[in-house]
Amino acid sequence: MPQYAVTGCAGFIGSNLVSRLLADGHEVIGIDNFSTGRREFLSAAIKSPAFTLVEGDLLDTTTMDKALKGRSVSMVFHLAANADVSSGVLHPRRDLEQNTIATHNVLEGMRSHDVSRIVFSSTGSIYGEPDVFPTPEDAPFPIQTSFYGASKLAGEGLIASFCEAFGFQAWIYRFVSVLGEGYTHGHVFDFYRKLQTDPNRIEVLGDGNQQKSYMYIGDCLDGILLGVEKGTAPVNIFNLGLDDTIKVHDSLALIVDRLGLSPKVDYTGGKRGWVGDSPLIHLDCTRIRKLGWKPARSIDQGVLCTLDWLRDNPWVFEGRE
Amino acid sequence: MPQYAVTGCAGFIGSNLVSRLLADGHEVIGIDNFSTGRREFLSAAIKSPAFTLVEGDLLDTTTMDKALKGRSVSMVFHLAANADVSSGVLHPRRDLEQNTIATHNVLEGMRSHDVSRIVFSSTGSIYGEPDVFPTPEDAPFPIQTSFYGASKLAGEGLIASFCEAFGFQAWIYRFVSVLGEGYTHGHVFDFYRKLQTDPNRIEVLGDGNQQKSYMYIGDCLDGILLGVEKGTAPVNIFNLGLDDTIKVHDSLALIVDRLGLSPKVDYTGGKRGWVGDSPLIHLDCTRIRKLGWKPARSIDQGVLCTLDWLRDNPWVFEGRE
Repeated sequence: MPQYAVTGCAGFIGSNLVSRLLADGHEVIGIDNFSTGRREFLSAAIKSPAFTLVEGDLLDTTTMDKALKGRSVSMVFHLAANADVSSGVLHPRRDLEQNTIATHNVLEGMRSHDVSRIVFSSTGSIYGEPDVFPTPEDAPFPIQTSFYGASKLAGEGLIASFCEAFGFQAWIYRFVSVLGEGYTHGHVFDFYRKLQTDPNRIEVLGDGNQQKSYMYIGDCLDGILLGVEKGTAPVNIFNLGLDDTIKVHDSLALIVDRLGLSPKVDYTGGKRGWVGDSPLIHLDCTRIRKLGWKPARSIDQGVLCTLDWLRDNPWVFEGRE
Repeated sequence: MPQYAVTGCAGFIGSNLVSRLLADGHEVIGIDNFSTGRREFLSAAIKSPAFTLVEGDLLDTTTMDKALKGRSVSMVFHLAANADVSSGVLHPRRDLEQNTIATHNVLEGMRSHDVSRIVFSSTGSIYGEPDVFPTPEDAPFPIQTSFYGASKLAGEGLIASFCEAFGFQAWIYRFVSVLGEGYTHGHVFDFYRKLQTDPNRIEVLGDGNQQKSYMYIGDCLDGILLGVEKGTAPVNIFNLGLDDTIKVHDSLALIVDRLGLSPKVDYTGGKRGWVGDSPLIHLDCTRIRKLGWKPARSIDQGVLCTLDWLRDNPWVFEGRE
């Protein structure tokens, strides 16, 4: 039975992937430091004899040893990351450490234990503010605009170098924002939290016209696993996102309608929600679609099912500011 | 009088830049840890009252404090790097530390001391193995093939993020190989050293058909300073190289002819001299040429003047394997 390792196993995408892999009959070694991951997301997994949890920080180079030593792991899904994109400007070193140096440590751990296949969660943010929309994987060489994007780009570069030097094989996914069950950051989370505090007024970062493409977690996992199955190059790079976009204020309208509210909306103004925010992320996903990927849920459906999940799981807001 | 800081001031490009800046009447704060830099290259500079040497490692975050505190530095030329491209496969972490993490530390040091203009020595290696020759700055998004290129790409991303987040301005130069007085690594150095040991036989990495574009250090400095003078964008990216290329075996022919030798040449074979070597680096330098840059020396002239300098300075080989 193939063994898979999943870093960031208690995070949003990681925990959903663990559930999927276990359901598909695989053994899974999950790695997390629980800095932002939630133990609750693993409550089903830890009951499975096919799941092993390794608690550790990837900045500690022994963590990957603990996860890989004495096992026959066939692939590492490296999803651990600082996913707090908007506060990079407050903590430039955090992105460097958690997204770049941690990735180096994962790769070196793999090399030490003869594991050579890696899946990496990159981001559409690495295109910066592109001139081409929708943006393909081979868009003109971008200039970075966020610490998050820069740190993921650096991770991609490290991975590609390991492929060239040591015969690794990689599947790199540049995501739009992902949402769905287990989603604990981002605009739906923020809007719902704000509206719980004050149902009559909400502040929205930027002018509300930022356009984003949101992808449902189930569709995201389908794309990841399809790319791994069909991508045979040494370095396989795929955009993953929907073919349409939604404006932030339209997404807010969906949310307040579902909640039966009609708050006063205050926009902070400007094209960008935060320093390094992309006013428009819209990826050309032809490459993964040609392999047969077709997202099942629309952006609207994704936003609403995420909202419903947050309403059903008020505990995710506990301990948050 | 403007003060400039130069990291890697005892290295090949750094020490030549220090000489140029001093000759132009500027005050220079030089920073080096002398891991590969040579004190001999600063023998003229240290006699100048306009030069201050700060010895320190950029992985130590206090080094930039020492260099910038209490001064009014208007620009940092960040040239310190691990420039040993070919042995990245033996030391993947060295490129990460010396080219990526050190760059982060330089940027954070600058931010602490309100210095916001940075020049960065990047590399044509970040284009990996491109499909487009000559390769322009906005070539299709490349896949990295070397730890060196990946670590410099990561440095570029960090710098661009600081420009976006903190109002920095940057001039990033993607060089071909640079040679000339003070050159202490690379093919002319290696060939001459090998021929000193055995004038009758020389081993050449690869099949000798790798094509490279070599630029003379004086032309390189002209390009850097012109770009700084005329580049007004927040992030200015320039390729710097010659419009033609030379094959490795043709360069060797120049060298053995100048030395009056006719060694047997053994090629190790293969398109690449080492893992991550680019069989062809040929940059489109239209962008910097449009600003008026015109290299004064041809590749042949650069190779031969480098060889002559090495013959006149045998001490540079002392202490080398």
